[in-house]
Amino acid sequence: MTHRTPLVVRWGDLDAAGIVYYPRYLHFCHVGMEEYFRQVVGIDYPAFLAEHRLGLPSVRTEVEHRRPIRYGDPVELEIEVVRVGESSIEWRDRFWHPGEAQPSTEARIVTVCVDMGSFTKRAVPDWLRSKLLGS
Amino acid sequence: MTHRTPLVVRWGDLDAAGIVYYPRYLHFCHVGMEEYFRQVVGIDYPAFLAEHRLGLPSVRTEVEHRRPIRYGDPVELEIEVVRVGESSIEWRDRFWHPGEAQPSTEARIVTVCVDMGSFTKRAVPDWLRSKLLGS
Amino acid sequence: MTHRTPLVVRWGDLDAAGIVYYPRYLHFCHVGMEEYFRQVVGIDYPAFLAEHRLGLPSVRTEVEHRRPIRYGDPVELEIEVVRVGESSIEWRDRFWHPGEAQPSTEARIVTVCVDMGSFTKRAVPDWLRSKLLGS
Amino acid sequence: MTHRTPLVVRWGDLDAAGIVYYPRYLHFCHVGMEEYFRQVVGIDYPAFLAEHRLGLPSVRTEVEHRRPIRYGDPVELEIEVVRVGESSIEWRDRFWHPGEAQPSTEARIVTVCVDMGSFTKRAVPDWLRSKLLGS
Repeated sequence: MTHRTPLVVRWGDLDAAGIVYYPRYLHFCHVGMEEYFRQVVGIDYPAFLAEHRLGLPSVRTEVEHRRPIRYGDPVELEIEVVRVGESSIEWRDRFWHPGEAQPSTEARIVTVCVDMGSFTKRAVPDWLRSKLLGS
Repeated sequence: MTHRTPLVVRWGDLDAAGIVYYPRYLHFCHVGMEEYFRQVVGIDYPAFLAEHRLGLPSVRTEVEHRRPIRYGDPVELEIEVVRVGESSIEWRDRFWHPGEAQPSTEARIVTVCVDMGSFTKRAVPDWLRSKLLGS
Repeated sequence: MTHRTPLVVRWGDLDAAGIVYYPRYLHFCHVGMEEYFRQVVGIDYPAFLAEHRLGLPSVRTEVEHRRPIRYGDPVELEIEVVRVGESSIEWRDRFWHPGEAQPSTEARIVTVCVDMGSFTKRAVPDWLRSKLLGS
Repeated sequence: MTHRTPLVVRWGDLDAAGIVYYPRYLHFCHVGMEEYFRQVVGIDYPAFLAEHRLGLPSVRTEVEHRRPIRYGDPVELEIEVVRVGESSIEWRDRFWHPGEAQPSTEARIVTVCVDMGSFTKRAVPDWLRSKLLGS
């Protein structure tokens, strides 16, 4: 399932070239995941962590930048759950400038479901799986 | 006691005006405290946290900026323990450009010693007090 | 004048003690200033920078922390313009947990109006002064 | 060519799970590039930017995490220039825990040489190409 949310770039997200510092995109992807939980899954990510003792650390990220984001640019972040495996979740994050045919930046992120105490893999719970897929 | 250490400013520390983003100074002050532990107190701050279950969160910060730091500037950070109270430690951090009579930025930071589990105040241990004061 | 806005703390704002890393408060204060421009002054801060060639770097910050902010806490950020001098603007930022009599964190920040090219002081323009004061 | 440098993880690099927040790895990769310029190419990256008006923004990043880095871990960052194309430079960054057969995190980063004014592609200068390759 796909979810879109406006992205407000802050002064502190920029580097000295006046564009978003590239590590910040991965932070924005995490923010996108938090918003996806709140708006699509229907549970706050902080509550998810606290109540289920599960976490979703990233094990693989892939980012492609086509054009930079500057201060004040109206940008939308599109978050998509591409695949839910046994314990992994694959996300696609696309940063859109208005009127462009291709996303300005596109990211693929694989997170894995772990027990927050032991950091060992856990199966994605069924209730979460169906909500992530929006089915 | 006073300790000086070179400060290397990174691309990611800058804002779009090409100067150090001001919240980063407080991060540098924390880095300074970590270096003070390692080089003056004689224990790595991570080891201090892990072995003694104590932490030193900041409860009060005060920063004055006289001139900005730019990329590539040779800067020294001077860290001083001004006072050790019952459970508080007061630090002064001064960022020096070479040849200047006054620090470019000067910070006063009060940290308080807490139990890392309960976040309640603890007395600064005697062994730490004397090492912080360099006596 | 005073403006209140909800503050959503993100996973990336936390430190290993599970609370907001204290330098992030100053970042939040800058975010607050950006929101104050957009919602009270009525001009986007990026547009303000670009059109007027002025900037508002911080020259003095003072922060007092009474209680930490944790992940998922419902927090409001109250931004107040305390005083507009010839070229300086003094802000007060208060971070409120619901139901508390005192702000969890309170900051005083002095910014100075500068020409973004030369970094030299400029008088706060009259149109901005009156809008900052909400009069 | 390959270069190794110790990596000191700071308190501010950690997330609430007590491990390095994953966007920080890309920041560390940029720090690695800065160190590679200083120690292998023989020119400070800030001086390179200022004197040649060139920049090296990232256009593609790929990161794989095998095990997390915790506070106090002794880690080495190995930076390698894999390939220098017409205007692109491909880097490999590997984060090593001592005694491990595989890097804890491994990154591939493609940067492209641009004019810092216009953000348009430039050929990698010959003097830089040969120094990057350590030949």
